[in-house]
Amino acid sequence: MRDLDSYIRSIPDFPEEGIIFRDVTSVIQDADGFKLAIDTMQDLIKDLDYDVVVGAESRGFIFGAPLAYNNHKPLVIIRKAGKLPCETISQEYALEYGTATIEIHKDAIKPGQKILLVDDLMATGGTNEAMIKLVEALGGEVAGVVVLIELAGLKGRERLAKYRIDAAITYEGK
Amino acid sequence: MRDLDSYIRSIPDFPEEGIIFRDVTSVIQDADGFKLAIDTMQDLIKDLDYDVVVGAESRGFIFGAPLAYNNHKPLVIIRKAGKLPCETISQEYALEYGTATIEIHKDAIKPGQKILLVDDLMATGGTNEAMIKLVEALGGEVAGVVVLIELAGLKGRERLAKYRIDAAITYEGK
Repeated sequence: MRDLDSYIRSIPDFPEEGIIFRDVTSVIQDADGFKLAIDTMQDLIKDLDYDVVVGAESRGFIFGAPLAYNNHKPLVIIRKAGKLPCETISQEYALEYGTATIEIHKDAIKPGQKILLVDDLMATGGTNEAMIKLVEALGGEVAGVVVLIELAGLKGRERLAKYRIDAAITYEGK
Repeated sequence: MRDLDSYIRSIPDFPEEGIIFRDVTSVIQDADGFKLAIDTMQDLIKDLDYDVVVGAESRGFIFGAPLAYNNHKPLVIIRKAGKLPCETISQEYALEYGTATIEIHKDAIKPGQKILLVDDLMATGGTNEAMIKLVEALGGEVAGVVVLIELAGLKGRERLAKYRIDAAITYEGK
């Protein structure tokens, strides 16, 4: 069987020189690759006790939705600002240039619920941290964060040292 | 068992007066609702012969990903312009005010592959039609379109009369 890593397309110098972009579309557009990705993430969290899966727009949905369905859990979505129709809270976070804002419905999480955060990538951990802030602002307890890809060189794990983080694939660089 | 319809939150006069917004977040953030949504869509397509699931950013991912995983099919994603890292083709389509552009990777579909398009909603059918154009431009054959919600009053089904369309829930109005 092929390694999960072998399904990832690495694009050098994208979006800028010195960065290797790790493309997940090549994983998911292969039936075996997609199955292996979800099954690997599932295996990482098999001992985790959680009530709700939270995924962030938009690639987080690709991995969060099957995990929620397979485990018969609710799927709560975090979206970019202005996309959710009901009352929300929002969180700004820094990008390399400028900032972005993400939102969650106020009624999406009940205080004390244990949350599994799912995303495709952990880089600097900035997006993951913003997701955690939203969850905690609603009284949720972060049981863990699971990502397909961790770029260890960007030290997201240090930034989120308080939390359990599982990654299906870890690249040492950026 | 509750009807799938009962999980949908209807928001009157959003985003503008006279429109009833059908919110899917209330479906997916209920474990039973999400399971029922996916299982109903699955049942609708159970006799369909297709090779690839195509989902559009971002709510299409929520339903497309579990369907692809459950049926051991590839998941190809259509994204808003500028988000996909490799060579793409793009398609513009009309919104109520202005236009939007969506893209697909050129290598995502092989000529002759049979495609299942998945999205949360069919309204006027404009977005679905743009997705179909991208798929067909790459030589894919649309085997069917499955959506969670159809707003029948907007006549998407007439616009896409050439294609098989399945909807888990149909609302007569807009």
